[in-house]
Amino acid sequence: MKRTWMILFMVCITVSSLFAAPRVYKLKMATTWGPTLSPLIDAAQNMAQLAEELSQGQLKIQIDTANKHKAPLGILDMVKGGQYDLGHTASYYWKGKDINTLPFTSMPFGLTAPEQYAWFYHGGGLELMQKVYARHNVLSFPGGSTGVQMGGWFRKEINSLDDLQGLKMRIPGFAGEIMARLGVQVTNIAPGELYMALETNAIDALEWVGPSMDIKMGFHKIAPFYYTGWHEPASEMQFLINQRVYKKLPEHLQKVLIAAIRLAAYDMYIQNYDMNAEAWQEMKKEYPNIKVETFSKPIMDAMKKANQDLVREMTSKNPLLKEVLDSQKAYIKKVREWSMMSDYLYLKDNLQ
Amino acid sequence: MKRTWMILFMVCITVSSLFAAPRVYKLKMATTWGPTLSPLIDAAQNMAQLAEELSQGQLKIQIDTANKHKAPLGILDMVKGGQYDLGHTASYYWKGKDINTLPFTSMPFGLTAPEQYAWFYHGGGLELMQKVYARHNVLSFPGGSTGVQMGGWFRKEINSLDDLQGLKMRIPGFAGEIMARLGVQVTNIAPGELYMALETNAIDALEWVGPSMDIKMGFHKIAPFYYTGWHEPASEMQFLINQRVYKKLPEHLQKVLIAAIRLAAYDMYIQNYDMNAEAWQEMKKEYPNIKVETFSKPIMDAMKKANQDLVREMTSKNPLLKEVLDSQKAYIKKVREWSMMSDYLYLKDNLQ
Repeated sequence: MKRTWMILFMVCITVSSLFAAPRVYKLKMATTWGPTLSPLIDAAQNMAQLAEELSQGQLKIQIDTANKHKAPLGILDMVKGGQYDLGHTASYYWKGKDINTLPFTSMPFGLTAPEQYAWFYHGGGLELMQKVYARHNVLSFPGGSTGVQMGGWFRKEINSLDDLQGLKMRIPGFAGEIMARLGVQVTNIAPGELYMALETNAIDALEWVGPSMDIKMGFHKIAPFYYTGWHEPASEMQFLINQRVYKKLPEHLQKVLIAAIRLAAYDMYIQNYDMNAEAWQEMKKEYPNIKVETFSKPIMDAMKKANQDLVREMTSKNPLLKEVLDSQKAYIKKVREWSMMSDYLYLKDNLQ
Repeated sequence: MKRTWMILFMVCITVSSLFAAPRVYKLKMATTWGPTLSPLIDAAQNMAQLAEELSQGQLKIQIDTANKHKAPLGILDMVKGGQYDLGHTASYYWKGKDINTLPFTSMPFGLTAPEQYAWFYHGGGLELMQKVYARHNVLSFPGGSTGVQMGGWFRKEINSLDDLQGLKMRIPGFAGEIMARLGVQVTNIAPGELYMALETNAIDALEWVGPSMDIKMGFHKIAPFYYTGWHEPASEMQFLINQRVYKKLPEHLQKVLIAAIRLAAYDMYIQNYDMNAEAWQEMKKEYPNIKVETFSKPIMDAMKKANQDLVREMTSKNPLLKEVLDSQKAYIKKVREWSMMSDYLYLKDNLQ
């Protein structure tokens, strides 16, 4: 009998240890951003904290910012290769590698933030994003919207298409290609050198993000014309997850991770809305002569045409990209009328 | 020795049972809505499901809809009294009981959905809501936004203030008080009788919600003038929690509950954005002669003046209500310029 009780005790200890100490999953996440780049880094930190709290410590996500891994534009490769389990970044950084990833950040003249979230979660957008990223063995989820990005800071007023001819502007990516078709001399310059380049007239204009992130750069001190947005109406960041890592997680922790991601994304959109409002008030107070302008109709029409041409060229030989862009286009057609009837007409009558 | 092993076994069984079977908390939630009232009931169900999934079954929230408890407008009392642990409802239903609860749903000419979430989470709104609800021993959280609610369905076009004189309109609550000051004969009619009342000219107009919820009511078939919104630019639902129940939950489950609530609220905003877009397309297709109109400037100005007068009267003897409304007003002053620079000007140039 002594032996029986002893065995029972041993069995009990073994079995209970399985329950008493749930396995902790330590994951590593690489971000495109440095440790102080609000609100982008906040979204990554918020997600990691939510995942840990909601899983009662079973998910521990260590964040390596760009300062650590030194490869801000290598996130997709590092998550794909398993060097990192997760990433926080923006989809359009991979357009050189895989053009199909482009439309999941934002497209010129595309969806606004609520429209785009509605497309992701109710209009087939998320499924299309998974289809594109499955080719890289990576899962991809919306990771926070900046809302409308501004059209950029210009030292001189832009009244006509002529004013754009030969204008030296830092505007990377797809928007830069459009500007180039309008005669702009598009350049790329490292962020740390942008202010000096603008001040010394090495460039005449530049595009950055919006008030919340522009304010620290100080462009408003030397380029008083702030043009409204057209090229990134709702830039959505992305959380990437290595597919094998995801599959190995217990179902419960998969659900926690997905919920933490969805919540952190929405949270960033709202946080940045507040930060933009606050930063704009500060800028304006300090530099009351900043002029908010919209590009004239001829310029906008030329941008729209260049955008359509570029999209047509890109999609002609790429059915998957066409599928994604057609889906966005169809969704805009459905949703935009509602945006105009609701938010647009409400705001129109309630200028403060 | 036999006794020792036996005791050790008993201790092991007892201790391990604490870990092996985490306590399940069964909570009951009452909703103002019936079981099919999308998207409102969906937000309640989504929250309950998230809470259960994220807590690995430790939180089980049973939902009683209005069909069961028969007290759609008794949610605050039932949660306060402990009959229910949680509620899903709208704050402005309690304005008769406690006027301070009014502004947390939406105010005429107030904040839009992203502006209001930014106010709740970054502008002190949530703290003010807790301050108001603490008097009822209840915690209150944002529970899903309908976005802009439409101004209502009218059988005849409204061109001037004269057209409003004696007009019989179903428009309850604070907006109804404003309309009454403009000469409208304000009535309240049970939802089930509204269509008939409109069809038989017992009323000339009515306010409901927006396309997603109006479509089932069929008003568009008999009242072709659909006026844009002014009175509820972003009606936010609320999740209520009995304070004692909340305090008894382990900290981990409190965090799960709060996260599930925040996520379900955002999710509803996006779901309803999609539903509105879809429903509007359907309505318009079936009844292409529906006319979307905005009230003329003289009417809007009169509404704004009546709103200001009413707010002044309500706040003159109520410092807490004044504190809440002043906070919203200050936040609009800060945030609205950004809304105009970003979403408004973007949409203006991108009519589809």
